[in-house]
Amino acid sequence: MSQTPRHLLGLRGISATQLHEWLARAAHWENEGDQVHRVLNDRFVVNMFFENSTRTRFSFEVAEKRLGAEVMNFSAGVSSVQKGESIEDTVRTLEAMGVHAGVIRLKQEGVLQALMNKVRVPLVNAGDGCNEHPTQGLLDLYTMKKQFGEIKDLNVTIIGDIKHSRVARSNLWALRELGANVRFCAPFEMRAPELADFADYISMDQALQSDVVMMLRVQLERHDQTNAMFSDTSAYRAAYGLTAERLSVMQSHAICMHPAPINRNVEMDDEVIDAPQSRVFPQMANGVPVRMAVLEWVMKK
Amino acid sequence: MSQTPRHLLGLRGISATQLHEWLARAAHWENEGDQVHRVLNDRFVVNMFFENSTRTRFSFEVAEKRLGAEVMNFSAGVSSVQKGESIEDTVRTLEAMGVHAGVIRLKQEGVLQALMNKVRVPLVNAGDGCNEHPTQGLLDLYTMKKQFGEIKDLNVTIIGDIKHSRVARSNLWALRELGANVRFCAPFEMRAPELADFADYISMDQALQSDVVMMLRVQLERHDQTNAMFSDTSAYRAAYGLTAERLSVMQSHAICMHPAPINRNVEMDDEVIDAPQSRVFPQMANGVPVRMAVLEWVMKK
Amino acid sequence: MSQTPRHLLGLRGISATQLHEWLARAAHWENEGDQVHRVLNDRFVVNMFFENSTRTRFSFEVAEKRLGAEVMNFSAGVSSVQKGESIEDTVRTLEAMGVHAGVIRLKQEGVLQALMNKVRVPLVNAGDGCNEHPTQGLLDLYTMKKQFGEIKDLNVTIIGDIKHSRVARSNLWALRELGANVRFCAPFEMRAPELADFADYISMDQALQSDVVMMLRVQLERHDQTNAMFSDTSAYRAAYGLTAERLSVMQSHAICMHPAPINRNVEMDDEVIDAPQSRVFPQMANGVPVRMAVLEWVMKK
Repeated sequence: MSQTPRHLLGLRGISATQLHEWLARAAHWENEGDQVHRVLNDRFVVNMFFENSTRTRFSFEVAEKRLGAEVMNFSAGVSSVQKGESIEDTVRTLEAMGVHAGVIRLKQEGVLQALMNKVRVPLVNAGDGCNEHPTQGLLDLYTMKKQFGEIKDLNVTIIGDIKHSRVARSNLWALRELGANVRFCAPFEMRAPELADFADYISMDQALQSDVVMMLRVQLERHDQTNAMFSDTSAYRAAYGLTAERLSVMQSHAICMHPAPINRNVEMDDEVIDAPQSRVFPQMANGVPVRMAVLEWVMKK
Repeated sequence: MSQTPRHLLGLRGISATQLHEWLARAAHWENEGDQVHRVLNDRFVVNMFFENSTRTRFSFEVAEKRLGAEVMNFSAGVSSVQKGESIEDTVRTLEAMGVHAGVIRLKQEGVLQALMNKVRVPLVNAGDGCNEHPTQGLLDLYTMKKQFGEIKDLNVTIIGDIKHSRVARSNLWALRELGANVRFCAPFEMRAPELADFADYISMDQALQSDVVMMLRVQLERHDQTNAMFSDTSAYRAAYGLTAERLSVMQSHAICMHPAPINRNVEMDDEVIDAPQSRVFPQMANGVPVRMAVLEWVMKK
Repeated sequence: MSQTPRHLLGLRGISATQLHEWLARAAHWENEGDQVHRVLNDRFVVNMFFENSTRTRFSFEVAEKRLGAEVMNFSAGVSSVQKGESIEDTVRTLEAMGVHAGVIRLKQEGVLQALMNKVRVPLVNAGDGCNEHPTQGLLDLYTMKKQFGEIKDLNVTIIGDIKHSRVARSNLWALRELGANVRFCAPFEMRAPELADFADYISMDQALQSDVVMMLRVQLERHDQTNAMFSDTSAYRAAYGLTAERLSVMQSHAICMHPAPINRNVEMDDEVIDAPQSRVFPQMANGVPVRMAVLEWVMKK
């Protein structure tokens, strides 16, 4: 097998045609219901999480098992397997054992592309540092498409810790490709200078006028704790949290989203999470058919 | 699906009819042998252990797989997912992903009922703090019924750390419902005042005259270590351990039980564990068909 | 079932006939390809790793699932389940639950035989301390047989930390039984006096003239760190590492092997690992059909 495998590293550079194909296939799988399909019978998929995750790992596992695959799980967490070299050895080991696809999450960014060049087993990026989280981006697109029918010309504002967010990046690239208007809203310390050409920063008041208000998790552990904005979560909530009060000024047709896990009552209030405008739990539900579509695609012969 | 799901929180308040139904169904599954049945094909069950367990988790996993279900495991141990709020988010996340039933173990008591009120996915309590461990109670009943045919009028004495024992509580409620005579035997520090109306305390000599002598694990970590009874395990063994000598004065038809894991040579001597009167390993074997009966029941459409 | 179960403790004392049977059966499974066969349908296999492992556990898991078995995983790592007594309780617990075979790795040596005498469920040793790692030995034999057709009269030199190597021991016993000439090459501190009667020590220059140059992992953590050979890995590499330079003096038909994980650029250089003579990744691939053969054998009725 000298054929190049189909990896999914990120949504940057993916065409609108391909994005629409995945979204359509996800709709197919959602319509099929929750039974197990045997399209990946005899195929082994390994989930390799070099950074801990509950939600994403489970979502992939449900997707894999619903496609009939044999599933194996590997979690390194803060173990010794953290250096790039060891990660490559682990992936090549699993490849040698006959695994047919891998889902991989890494703390580091910038190593996954090199890894993909070295292995023949198709890999799906489940989050690499602050770079990309493409299946999260796709499930967010899918959630918007279910709501609005079209993504073109939607006003989407992504609010919060843009700087450290792979979710923001994956959404940005795909939403722009599909013709949405993407804006950011974030305090100065959470902005990403290298993305300045692709999305404008707007105020919180302006952000609340969007069709989609997408909140991000504040990654408190990555910030300077002496800064009041991050040492005092109530200051963050006051300035950038989606409170019940702010929810009430959103447009009647608008929705709010969050990739979870949520710092409850920091970036989103408890009552907002369960409000009719919230798509937090539907996003999780949508992750399964979206990941089925992606896994099927990378493993297609 | 607005229908109320079938949860199993505890055995308190469960009718004799229901208890007998589960025991009969467990007997059915035991008779079916150890192959895999496909009654839960396409159904996803997740084991969520917010408190570590080897034995109970494996027993549920065998039961689930023998019913043909797809199984996922989640262990939080001493991780960050310990607050009640995070537990609810975890369960709702898995529910959103299309999981069809959950088995849940919690360190806390008093939060599971509230959780059950909020989710639509059926949950089975695999132990919540010192409150209940209903499938352990049922497998104990099943073990007694196999031995004696009837549970009505059996003399059962539960010995040891009543205060911290969810096993004692689940057994108490179900044994009383089925007409057994339940007594406790415990040092003062291990008694549970709130259960005083439901079972009398008897001496160790009296306890040994029971049909069923049920030993509990001493949860040394939960006691005041300055008390000689708990700092010095040989003092506990001398006063309340089921030694070979004490075993020899039990009635010829009587059996002894322990939910395991055992502090060997503290609450039960090595040679007692493997004695003919011991049901320690049969209890573990019985756990599988009993859990099959319960899982089938909660997932019934 | 009073029949004695078929365990695989080690390769010491295993007949050439039996070894050839396993190798032939491994070849059968390799030829069958990577789909799932249903020969162990309805059979439950549990992987019990009382010492951490990624590679070996995954290899067994792939083998088990390719045979159609239901797989459960148990990892104790550095947890409390480390005493011999608890290990026995864990195994007997799983046996009571109806598990049909177990794969077991232990930090200790000398306890597995006693354990095997006490249980009825067949067990496969996946590494017990410095004693044996029989399936690794078999996959090494299989790799040599694929390369050379015959193992009889092959010159095999095992280089490195003989003292702490269960891989060296399993290879030694089986290779001698099949008529290979086994030699060791190691610094004084890494020699195993009790094996002196079974293999001579030769120099690194002589070792490079072998048909098979088998490198071992240096278990740095088990050695006196004040010794320059182990505190300074470049000293070890200079004296005993398989460098690119040394590889170039090997015979043209010779191969080099390593059980992995490798201390890269200590016992083997990066470029040697990926050289045409290297069988490092093929060894991993061969582990799967070899373990299928062994699992099938221990579970044969």
